[in-house]
Parts: sequence; structure tokens; C-alpha cells
Amino acid sequence: MSQSGVPGDWKAISEVKKKALFDSIPPEWRIPSNILPPDTQLDVTPFPVTSGWFSEQELEITAATASSILENVHTWKWSAQDVTKAFCKRAAAAHQLTNCLSEALFSSALSRARELDDHLAKTSSVVGPLHGLPISLKDNFNIIGTDSTVGLAHWVNKPATHNSAVVDQLQDAGAVFYVKTNVPTAMMIAETVNNVFGRTTNPLNRNLTSGGSSGGESALIAFGGSVLGVGTDIGGSLRIPASLTGIFALRPSFGRFPTRGAASALAGQEAVHSVNGPMARGIGEIELFAKTVVELRPWERDPKCVPLPWRSVNVGPKLKLGVMWDDGMVRPTPPIQRALREVVEKLRKAGHEIIDWAPELHEQALGILLKFFTADGGKSLKAILEPVHEPVRPEMAAYSNAAELGVHALWQLQMQRSTVCHEYLNRCREAGIDGILCATTPCAGVEHGKFKHVAYTGVFNILDYAAISFPCGTSVDKALDLASDGSSPLSDMDRQVQADYDASAVHGMPMSLQLVAGRLEEEKVIEMTKTVLRAL
Amino acid sequence: MSQSGVPGDWKAISEVKKKALFDSIPPEWRIPSNILPPDTQLDVTPFPVTSGWFSEQELEITAATASSILENVHTWKWSAQDVTKAFCKRAAAAHQLTNCLSEALFSSALSRARELDDHLAKTSSVVGPLHGLPISLKDNFNIIGTDSTVGLAHWVNKPATHNSAVVDQLQDAGAVFYVKTNVPTAMMIAETVNNVFGRTTNPLNRNLTSGGSSGGESALIAFGGSVLGVGTDIGGSLRIPASLTGIFALRPSFGRFPTRGAASALAGQEAVHSVNGPMARGIGEIELFAKTVVELRPWERDPKCVPLPWRSVNVGPKLKLGVMWDDGMVRPTPPIQRALREVVEKLRKAGHEIIDWAPELHEQALGILLKFFTADGGKSLKAILEPVHEPVRPEMAAYSNAAELGVHALWQLQMQRSTVCHEYLNRCREAGIDGILCATTPCAGVEHGKFKHVAYTGVFNILDYAAISFPCGTSVDKALDLASDGSSPLSDMDRQVQADYDASAVHGMPMSLQLVAGRLEEEKVIEMTKTVLRAL
Repeated sequence: MSQSGVPGDWKAISEVKKKALFDSIPPEWRIPSNILPPDTQLDVTPFPVTSGWFSEQELEITAATASSILENVHTWKWSAQDVTKAFCKRAAAAHQLTNCLSEALFSSALSRARELDDHLAKTSSVVGPLHGLPISLKDNFNIIGTDSTVGLAHWVNKPATHNSAVVDQLQDAGAVFYVKTNVPTAMMIAETVNNVFGRTTNPLNRNLTSGGSSGGESALIAFGGSVLGVGTDIGGSLRIPASLTGIFALRPSFGRFPTRGAASALAGQEAVHSVNGPMARGIGEIELFAKTVVELRPWERDPKCVPLPWRSVNVGPKLKLGVMWDDGMVRPTPPIQRALREVVEKLRKAGHEIIDWAPELHEQALGILLKFFTADGGKSLKAILEPVHEPVRPEMAAYSNAAELGVHALWQLQMQRSTVCHEYLNRCREAGIDGILCATTPCAGVEHGKFKHVAYTGVFNILDYAAISFPCGTSVDKALDLASDGSSPLSDMDRQVQADYDASAVHGMPMSLQLVAGRLEEEKVIEMTKTVLRAL
Repeated sequence: MSQSGVPGDWKAISEVKKKALFDSIPPEWRIPSNILPPDTQLDVTPFPVTSGWFSEQELEITAATASSILENVHTWKWSAQDVTKAFCKRAAAAHQLTNCLSEALFSSALSRARELDDHLAKTSSVVGPLHGLPISLKDNFNIIGTDSTVGLAHWVNKPATHNSAVVDQLQDAGAVFYVKTNVPTAMMIAETVNNVFGRTTNPLNRNLTSGGSSGGESALIAFGGSVLGVGTDIGGSLRIPASLTGIFALRPSFGRFPTRGAASALAGQEAVHSVNGPMARGIGEIELFAKTVVELRPWERDPKCVPLPWRSVNVGPKLKLGVMWDDGMVRPTPPIQRALREVVEKLRKAGHEIIDWAPELHEQALGILLKFFTADGGKSLKAILEPVHEPVRPEMAAYSNAAELGVHALWQLQMQRSTVCHEYLNRCREAGIDGILCATTPCAGVEHGKFKHVAYTGVFNILDYAAISFPCGTSVDKALDLASDGSSPLSDMDRQVQADYDASAVHGMPMSLQLVAGRLEEEKVIEMTKTVLRAL
């Protein structure tokens, strides 16, 4: 990264883009310097309430659930403009404190909100089920006229000429788009850092990562700057950031929500599909998004969507879950081990049946996943980096080092994947489980640059199962969650992850776990999560 | 093909395998030489009725529909053994006249039928909805202990160690497997010819091909040797043979019926998916298969199946269909042009709305399809041919000549495919059509070695739409269907196809057309076909 601001070069592009982003925040939403938390303040989530900079109404709006926002907008307690302004301001603050945005669309959002208010005033009817709801979007969702840089300098100032299918769909339903959020380079790092916008930090502890690749979203939502965001997931990119910021995320199976027309630096890669899903502070928003999107018949806009209506499911009073204590490669760190134990205990107390679930096939599935990502020898990525001399980030060394796999070898790998999927389905059916409970990430918090192991999420991308990362209501306690037992590590990676664990560094961080149901069982995994939350 | 019977060499293997197949036909089911039709007799379909070699009951059983067979077996009018014997005998005759089988499983079929009869006698209940129904299987469906050679010498004497998912499913439903049917080498030729079993001929005119790759099935069914068969389709392999023999075939969308565990010479190729589907003389059998298979919840056996229940659909009294008169590359030959005109006229008379459907995107889709097939540079195929020195058949020159495409180029091609699918979906939605009516093949009959153009079917594999080939009730008339107009050909291929057309050679052959609905609209395409048939 030795080159500096030569015009047309990545550094110069980055400087201009970052300035344009900051300039798009109106002066009244720039945090006055006298109340700006110092860089040494790690937890900035109290800022909106403690700073005195937000009105009562702004705080009330940005703390409300999506369903109460919708109700209040529809009944004129709040105008869509009030709601949009409140979220724009809080998102602007989030960005200034965590660097979580990639685009600020405040002015178009306010125009849109005004149109929605006018429509409601004139017709006494809403345009759709999301009328007036601000929704934040991960950077790779295309909005006409707006960049989708995906953290790549070459894609700066290349505004989209079409909307992503999900953008069209949410817009028709009445949503207001007001920000796009930062991602790691090419969305292929489990932290959010790139050469255009830099690094997004975790608002709960700015020494820690907000995860990746949907880590602009997770930082924004955890700060209260969004009530509902849309991210993507190809190896854990929804669930990892949700887990590290204590929010909810649903990874749907491919074909349930529309993915067409979103930007990707691995475009055309289909051996493991990227999917879109919701992120939010509550399970209610997750369900609202999922049900609304499916009921809008996404298969009419995206040929890869399955015409499967939203189904009401009854998971029964008693769940049968397999608990996977570790994935055979890396053990959860002590706080996540404790979270698992406590949750299992509470579930058993509530009458649910919990059996042990061995991590069979997980290591094999991870190996296949990682090979799929680099199967083109990194050519797709390099073709985007080279025109502006953007260096390959060190986290992405696998892409520089990869050899083109060849189609014949890809076919063999795809066969292996199919076998793993079949064997895993058989295991689940034979055990008669409703789902799997396990870690989302080995750690409750990760210092910048130290995220290491995506297998807890990535295996379920290979299997294409519906999965939710949920906060389990407790947080890391350095008095309880002592240093890892360094003895008998499962692998070198396990040794490193346990060595990296520092109870003081993550003290107070929320702890999350993952619930997994079968393929295209989005309804079921949501109901299961609600059942589990009731038991906690 | 200069090498001869060296042990371990393809020719020797072929000789032994063909002899074993013939030997597996019991003497009583070998056609006596005095009634064996001479090779010069082209249409052998009258043989069962005219030869006097079949009993009244055998003729009645093999002429019955699947639903009346099921009813008669369940009510003891016929035993499952009676039914199985009748179909074994007629299939044996079909093989002796058209070379349509690859495996004869008569002895295990009769044991199975006896078990089913015993079960019904003992319990007064059937084992499942297909209790006692003989079902023929294309050669690539694995049955434990039986070869799936797929026409490849190297795969002879390598009995399967597992059942295909669809085999397990049909077996649990009560089906009796009694034959597997011949395919072209690797199932990648639109006629049925390979170096192990040789060529299957069309029982309606043995100078003509029964199509491919499910051309053993089509010959068998057209001869009355099966009431319901299962084939596969990756570019037209169900519909082309159905079309050329005047029977029905349903190509489902991927994920509707289970494909797991079937043999493939392009294993792991997923850019365009092979699918399984039913072939039969009536639409009733097609619907029986489709509904039964889906209601048996294939997604519990095959992780690639979609949990989409069988839906009852109402296509309404009036269809809106797009008629595609030609695909922009090759015009249908005169009889198929006439079939299209006559069907459109009858549909209009019956009150249906028919609009013209331009072949936009078809040429592009065909180009993508053909590149997918050979993307591994033919390595998968060569690896099966080389150990036994089996030569590449001339029809498969594209596989010898292909270069390994590379994963990066495959990704680009997959993107192009996704764009085509999106644009085609938009076209269909904007036009508001229920479906498309077009040719299945340009020709009503094709002399051996002359099949040329798979685009009428293959484009719908790229799009993954549900499609049915159906006989439209009329046949080629050399007095009406004069030689092609050689002027202004659409392409060199069109010029060749029109030049090959010889009205005398195909006189009397049944004419088929194709109806196409959207992705995963199997119920709808069946209902549409029934509606169209009522208008004819």
C-alpha cells in the first residue's frame, strides 16, 4: 500500500470518496466537537441517550420496533418524514463514531418520505406493508444512481444503472432507503475493513470488530441507527456480524429471498450461493422482513427464487435440538461455552429435549467452502484491483495465492459437496431433530484483525440450511469466563483462537448463539428462535 | 473402432454384456423365429396384437392405463404377478425388435410382485400408491446389484452399491422394477446409440431413431412394453424421444423430483441440471407419477429437492399462450409447421388466446448450454473411455475437441445464463402468458444419425421451465407435408435440417408439440396440456 494520492489510483479515489461521504452528512447532523466521544471511549452506544443531542421523539422513534413505527406512521402519530429524519441523524452519528456507512442517501430518503406522507394524506391508504419504514442496505445492493463499491476503489463513481430485485421489492412495499453500509473488500473478510472506506468498529467496544461482511449493518443497528437492515451471507456474513454485536440475523436458504442484481466481486460463482437476509435488534423485525418479502412473490422478479409461499408452522411445545458443543476444529472460547451450557440448561428446564450433536462432516464442508471461494484463482478479484493498483489486503492472501481450479476439478468438488449435503440430511432425519444449537462464532468479541474461524457459520452455507444468530441475553463476565484451557487443542487454529482469548478485552460483550433448521425452513427457524427466547 | 475382442477392451466387454442381456431373457419370452418380423418390417408396433404370441390377458394388461392397472391389482382382478409377467414379456419382445433394453430384471421383478401379492393377501392393504405397478427405468438409475453402464464399456460389470433416491421412493410406493433401458453414450446424444449395446430403433419405423437420450424408454413405451417409465433430461432427453415416438414426457424443473444418486458421465456438473421425469402413452400416467413423487416428500431423501407440496391449480377456461413458430435458428419441418398451425387453429376455435412469441434469447441460451456440457474439456468422459480404449463416438466430437474452460470463464458464462433467465422471465410476465407452445423437435421423424438441433428443448433446460412434449393426434402425410421450402434458411443448420426432410421417410409418423410453463410449475403445465388436449 505504498502508493499515495496519484489521480486514478486507489488511494486518491479513496480520499475523494471518503470526503464525499462525509460531505453528504448535513452540518446539523455532524456531532459537535464538544460532545464527540473521545477515541478512547470504547462503548459509544450510550451516546444517543446521554449526549442530549437527540430529541425525545428522535430517541423514541429510533428505539421503537418496526411494527410500532409502521403503526405510528400509518396512524399519523409520526410522519414518515419524522421517522426518516430521526434515523438519518442517528445513522450519521453511528458513522461518525464507528465508520459504518458507505453511502448516505439522506436527501433522497427525505423526498421519498414526503411522497409517502402525501400519499397517505391524499388516499388514506399505505403504498404497501412497509410504508414509511427506513431500511438500511448493505453496500452491495444496487440502487439506481448510487455506487455499490463493495469496498473496491475501482467501483467508486460507477453508479448503478439498475436496482437489485430486493430493492425494487422493498421499495414497492413502501420502504425508505437512507443509507448503505460498509463491507470488507469484496465482502470476503469476516471483519469490515477495506481500502476505500477503512475499518468499521463495533459500537459496543470500538477496539473490537463489528464482524463481516455485513459489519457496517451490524454496527449501525447495534448503535440504534437502523431498525431493520439487509445483509448478505456466503460463509457467515450475516450471522458473524450479528453475533459480534448482539443482534439478530436470519440466513435464509438460497431461493427464498431475491438475490438478483446485487453487486458481487465473485460474480457468477454459484457452487455456494450468496443469500440476502435481515438483521435487527429483535426477532420481530426478522419475521416481518421474511414474511413480507416472501408474500411479495419474489419468484416473479428473480428467476432463482422458489415459488414457496410463507407457511405457518407449529414447532410444538417441545423442541428436539442437537447441541454441537464444538465443531471439531475450534472450541468456542469460555464465554460462548458458558452461554451454550446455560442455554441448554434453561431449555431442558423448559421441557425441551437436547441431544449431543457431533460435528461430523463439518471439517470436510469447510474445506469445500474455502476452495469454492478461490476456484477462479482469484481472477475476478484481481481484475477489479489491478486497474487502480489497489493492493490485495493481507486478509485475502488466499485469493492472491490461489490457482485456477479448472472446471473438471470444480465438478469433483461439487460432487463432494452433494455427498456431504446428503449425509448431513440423513443424520438430521435419523436423529429426528428439529434443529441444531451451536456457536455462531467461537468468540463473543474479537479484536480488530484477529477473526479467524468461519466454520460455525460456513458449514451451513454449504448445507444451505436456514439459520439464525440470536443474542442469548447474557454477556461476557471476566470473573466467570476465565482464560481458555490451553490443553489438548483440537487444531492449530484452536490453539490460536484460545490463545487470542482475553477475558478483559471482551468483558461485557453480549453473547450470541446460532439456531439452525433445514433447507428452506425459514418459518421454522424463526418459530424455533421465538420458542428458545421464551425459555431464556 | 478398429480394436476387436481383446479381453478388458471395450469390444470384448460389449460382446459379453450384450450376450448376458440376451441370456437374461427366458426362452419362453424369446420370439419364435417363425413369427419374428423381418428386419425389413419397419413398423413393429402391430406385432403384439397381430402375432398371436400374446394372450388376451397379456394384451389387455399391457394396453391398460396405470390407474386401471392399480385398481385391478388392488381388487384382485389381476395379480401383481400377472401384470409383471405381461410387461416382462412385452418388454422382451420390444427389446428383440428395437434393442431398447440395457438390463432385464425379470426374475427379481417377479419375486417382488409375489411379495406384493402376498402382502395384499395377508394385510388387505397396499404397500403404497403404486402397489404392483411395473415401472421401467432409464439405465442411469441405480438399483443395488445392477449395472448402470450409461452406454459406457468401462461401467459394465460395476453393479450399483446404492439405489437412486427416486428408485427408493418408487419402490416404497409399491412399484415393480423389471427393466432398465438403453441410452446413448454418456446420455449426451439426441439418438440412442452406444458402443456397448448398439443402437435402439423406433418401433413405429425402425429406419428412424427413437430419440435420445431416453430413447430406450421411448421405444419400449411406444411398443407397449411399459405403461410408465422414468427418464432424464439435460437438453431435451425426455422430450426429444417422446416427441419422436408419439408419447408424453414431462420435464420438471430442477428440485421437484429427486435426482440424487443417479449415474452421470458428467458428474458434478451443475451449471445446467439434469432432471428426472415420467414418460408414458397418456397424460394420466404423467400426472400420477408427478403427484405421487411429490407427495412422498422427496426433499427428505434428496437435499436438492424443494419442499414444495403438490398444488391444485386452475388454469381457467381460457389459456393465453405464446406460439413460437420457429426458434430463430431452425424452422420446424413441414409436418411440424402444419401441426402447429392446426393446433393453434383449434385452440383459437376453443376460445383460447394465442399470441405470437418471438424466439428472443433462444440462440444465446443454446450457445451457453452447449458450452456448459463440455466445460471440463471432456475430461470426465475421457476418463471413462480410456481405461477400456473405447473410442469417442463421432456424435460426441465436441467432447474430444473441447478445451477445459476454466472456472473464471465458467463464472462469466453462468452470469450470462442468469441474465438470460431474468430477461426471459420478464418477457413472459410482461406478455402475461400462461405458457409457450412450440415444436419439441424440428422433425416428426429422424433417420438414424441425422438428428441435429436440440434448441427447441435445450433452451428450456437453461431456463429450467416445466415442459411437456405431447402428441397432437395427427401424423405426417406425405401428400400434405411436401418438401421444405429451401429458400431463405435461418442458418446453415436450418438449410441442412430442411434438406434432410424426406416426406416419404417419415410418412405416418405421429406429430408432437411442446407446452412450456414457468419454473416449478409442473402442476400448471399438466393442467395446460389437459386443456389443450380437450381442444384437439
